[in-house]
Amino acid sequence: MGKDVEVAEQQGGGGGGGEFSAKDYHDSPPAPLIDFDELGKWSFYRAVIAEFIATLLFLYVTVLTVIGYKSQTDPTLNTDQCGGVGILGIAWAFGGMIFILVYCTAGISGGHINPAVTFGLFLGRKVSLIRALLYMVAQCLGAICGCGFVKAFQKSYYNRYGGGANELADGYNKGTGLGAEIIGTFVLVYTVFSATDPKRSARDSHVPVLAPLPIGFAVFMVHLATIPITGTGINPARSFGAAVIYNKEKAWDDQWILWVGPFIGAFVAAFYHQYILRAAAIKALGSFRSNA
Amino acid sequence: MGKDVEVAEQQGGGGGGGEFSAKDYHDSPPAPLIDFDELGKWSFYRAVIAEFIATLLFLYVTVLTVIGYKSQTDPTLNTDQCGGVGILGIAWAFGGMIFILVYCTAGISGGHINPAVTFGLFLGRKVSLIRALLYMVAQCLGAICGCGFVKAFQKSYYNRYGGGANELADGYNKGTGLGAEIIGTFVLVYTVFSATDPKRSARDSHVPVLAPLPIGFAVFMVHLATIPITGTGINPARSFGAAVIYNKEKAWDDQWILWVGPFIGAFVAAFYHQYILRAAAIKALGSFRSNA
Amino acid sequence: MGKDVEVAEQQGGGGGGGEFSAKDYHDSPPAPLIDFDELGKWSFYRAVIAEFIATLLFLYVTVLTVIGYKSQTDPTLNTDQCGGVGILGIAWAFGGMIFILVYCTAGISGGHINPAVTFGLFLGRKVSLIRALLYMVAQCLGAICGCGFVKAFQKSYYNRYGGGANELADGYNKGTGLGAEIIGTFVLVYTVFSATDPKRSARDSHVPVLAPLPIGFAVFMVHLATIPITGTGINPARSFGAAVIYNKEKAWDDQWILWVGPFIGAFVAAFYHQYILRAAAIKALGSFRSNA
Amino acid sequence: MGKDVEVAEQQGGGGGGGEFSAKDYHDSPPAPLIDFDELGKWSFYRAVIAEFIATLLFLYVTVLTVIGYKSQTDPTLNTDQCGGVGILGIAWAFGGMIFILVYCTAGISGGHINPAVTFGLFLGRKVSLIRALLYMVAQCLGAICGCGFVKAFQKSYYNRYGGGANELADGYNKGTGLGAEIIGTFVLVYTVFSATDPKRSARDSHVPVLAPLPIGFAVFMVHLATIPITGTGINPARSFGAAVIYNKEKAWDDQWILWVGPFIGAFVAAFYHQYILRAAAIKALGSFRSNA
Repeated sequence: MGKDVEVAEQQGGGGGGGEFSAKDYHDSPPAPLIDFDELGKWSFYRAVIAEFIATLLFLYVTVLTVIGYKSQTDPTLNTDQCGGVGILGIAWAFGGMIFILVYCTAGISGGHINPAVTFGLFLGRKVSLIRALLYMVAQCLGAICGCGFVKAFQKSYYNRYGGGANELADGYNKGTGLGAEIIGTFVLVYTVFSATDPKRSARDSHVPVLAPLPIGFAVFMVHLATIPITGTGINPARSFGAAVIYNKEKAWDDQWILWVGPFIGAFVAAFYHQYILRAAAIKALGSFRSNA
Repeated sequence: MGKDVEVAEQQGGGGGGGEFSAKDYHDSPPAPLIDFDELGKWSFYRAVIAEFIATLLFLYVTVLTVIGYKSQTDPTLNTDQCGGVGILGIAWAFGGMIFILVYCTAGISGGHINPAVTFGLFLGRKVSLIRALLYMVAQCLGAICGCGFVKAFQKSYYNRYGGGANELADGYNKGTGLGAEIIGTFVLVYTVFSATDPKRSARDSHVPVLAPLPIGFAVFMVHLATIPITGTGINPARSFGAAVIYNKEKAWDDQWILWVGPFIGAFVAAFYHQYILRAAAIKALGSFRSNA
Repeated sequence: MGKDVEVAEQQGGGGGGGEFSAKDYHDSPPAPLIDFDELGKWSFYRAVIAEFIATLLFLYVTVLTVIGYKSQTDPTLNTDQCGGVGILGIAWAFGGMIFILVYCTAGISGGHINPAVTFGLFLGRKVSLIRALLYMVAQCLGAICGCGFVKAFQKSYYNRYGGGANELADGYNKGTGLGAEIIGTFVLVYTVFSATDPKRSARDSHVPVLAPLPIGFAVFMVHLATIPITGTGINPARSFGAAVIYNKEKAWDDQWILWVGPFIGAFVAAFYHQYILRAAAIKALGSFRSNA
Repeated sequence: MGKDVEVAEQQGGGGGGGEFSAKDYHDSPPAPLIDFDELGKWSFYRAVIAEFIATLLFLYVTVLTVIGYKSQTDPTLNTDQCGGVGILGIAWAFGGMIFILVYCTAGISGGHINPAVTFGLFLGRKVSLIRALLYMVAQCLGAICGCGFVKAFQKSYYNRYGGGANELADGYNKGTGLGAEIIGTFVLVYTVFSATDPKRSARDSHVPVLAPLPIGFAVFMVHLATIPITGTGINPARSFGAAVIYNKEKAWDDQWILWVGPFIGAFVAAFYHQYILRAAAIKALGSFRSNA
């Protein structure tokens, strides 16, 4: 960790961060909007394939877990309503899959597996526009295929138990659903930015960066909180893929919430990270420090 | 890890620690009580903002999880009392959020998210008095806002299911509640001190320091044990924010327990770490070793 | 981590992987099919013993967990159907045991504990043919002994509650079972390849490799998803050992699914890793890059 | 990690371990039986205190979790039998506390918190006899105090719900209980030896050693499997402390199982590690290699 950076500041357990003017790390230059160079490299297409496969596996495992849980706790089929992995097991499935898939694809594609994450990293100028768009297409196609496998395996269960689609639960209005998606995605994308910040490895020698684990936990946490509200989207590809395969009116009616919410959340997280935590705005205006 | 320190002692799996007189590490100098210098730096205000946002997200996700669980298992609304994430899921929400928030803010503010942790680190002279006070204010305001979001999203559920407020459960007296808060906070702050000890990275080359994970687990563990007693505070900002938004008499009546207990626990942990484990007292008196 | 490799590329949070032509790492040469040299080394036999013991412990702990859960939730014995560790606890037992056993045996035998993993790594030319065969025999014998201990400890429970054997659940056809085993094993072996890729430590300096944890989580995830279908095999030794000790017709009838599925899944994962992600095919044909 | 050792062997994902004759690491010399030197050091007494406090906290949190779970699911008190953290939550409490306490005390005392672990490491000559004995006394006293706190906090619940004491469940004979304790402790002590092996950091550069996490998971796993049999001891101090405070005949009758079993398990693990995996026996006799 941090072999290629210099550790210039020693940091106690409690003290605040270093000063941004002490440039002891390298920011990568912002990714260009359109990078023709990457279009000629196999590694670019490989990255798109990896996003497709990862999102496919993500939807396959998680939706299969949801359907299995609902069939095992259906009172018309079982006497034991406590069987199945529980809502807690479903939350683990979403968080745990993101952990292992980010771990597996981080070195190939950056490990997004989520259009909202791709959008946030595009805003932070970590990926080019064309890469961002192709990733999102691959993620949506992967999600459709992943749900398709689940439906192919157990068609009657799939339709009977809601197909893993995100829908606004009864008793919540659209504003609440939108708010829940915004804050939930903010938690996720904020964690992604914190985990992949190049300044981090330079500054925090006491906090080794096992990035995929907190990212997976962020997904786990948000599912614990918002499964009762929207079923938890925070990933438009996941919501879109399930809606395409399930294809019921309610899932399509609420679909906009599961795109607009996550994209707003990712935007706010990118803004918070770049303009507050990294102080891009203040740096541009000249900071307290430079006046002193 | 430990790039900037020298590893002078080799340590077997079982043997005890090294001798304190072998100074193979650097203690940061104690933080001054009032550090005017930090008041002129953006990084100081950024740290306060980060504590505010982190505590807001902490309360939002955890209280939403609590309310969602209670609504999903309410026998007047559901036939299936096994739905919801369970008390285990609630304990995960608290511990997991601390894990990811400490991970995200460690490099910005030190990752306290808890006035008791701030108080303990202030006693250990890791943060200045003024930083400690501003952190505590930011944490309390963040907690209020986090609970406010939950109430705004689902007002009727929020009030019906107790608002995530900490209250002493029936059948426990105030002494028990206070004791539970003291020992629970001791476990947390002891883990924080152990994880951020500068001597640690020097001495324990076989124990890499992924500090946020054990800190999050400490919170998870204490919730498993004391949710039946006080609902588990061990974080005065968390208890205060919920009490302000819920604003029922019982929550206010027990509020003092959730401030006095954690502060005593943090004090004992700081004392244990500084005077027993780091042997500050013995060093001052002259140790066995120096006489030998 | 990565002491012996050079970190030649700096990688941003989002950007794709490096180019394969930049050889900044060393691939081990492919393992020979038959390596007479290793037959004369104690480390070889020690590795076979370690696989035997690890698979024994794996089956002992996991099958004991399954039997204990079923006895604690049997409505004829208990009034409380919510007792026991739950299906979630069973999934943790399988995933958690793989985590600690891979951790313990990684340095001795490579930590396979699963004929499908051994087969995948043999296809990737990481182990010799003779090592692969001996590992598989040791794994199957270990699994038989592990289940034997469980049966010896509690014979009546063992037979009454299904002996931890994998069987196709009612309502699923053989094609679904086979598909579930193929994709489940793909997830596992893909994670194993990603975690042990020598290119990885060179390229992903921001993703430290605590390999056993994601491997254990992959097993945990697949159990969450497919316990309702086949009981989750993805490990032919585990399915075979339970079938031998339980020895009922149904378990033997479905046994072929639990061998063919995992071996196909491992084959596809090895192909995906070698020919898509590592681009062995393209390299052989001459890549885009070399033409440019 | 492994700063002070040389990495002489590169290891692929699958291949077996290195050869023991290639001494690329340093074994610490065996600890003397009686080391008068350590008696004059404050670090020795500090280690004993740390074991006392850690075992106290271990018993306090875990037994409080057990009692809280049983009171929340008591059908005479509650209509909802699915409340509480579940058996899964209890298993997490034991495993998670060992994780954080080993993490916190590893650098002070080696992080045993268990007489069986101390016994195993004494057999492996990692600690002196006098240190081993004092640790065991401190652990037993800490366990008594930890249970004492729980009883003091909620006396009627403590006695009504079994006091967290280990007892053989109905329907299991003493041989089964002894076997379960032996194999369970073997899993734990084998993990401890693997995690603290000095050869490990030299050999397995691809497997970073976050030792406390797999050790905690080993405890978690064994609890999932054997709570239905003995309540899971695998730690004589834990069983003894609960028996002293609970002080009912049944707990004392079965007490010998919870000392003899763990000590046999620790002995077998030490033997397996030293004589099979480290091949001390073969080295002494002259190995295959040296004859070749």
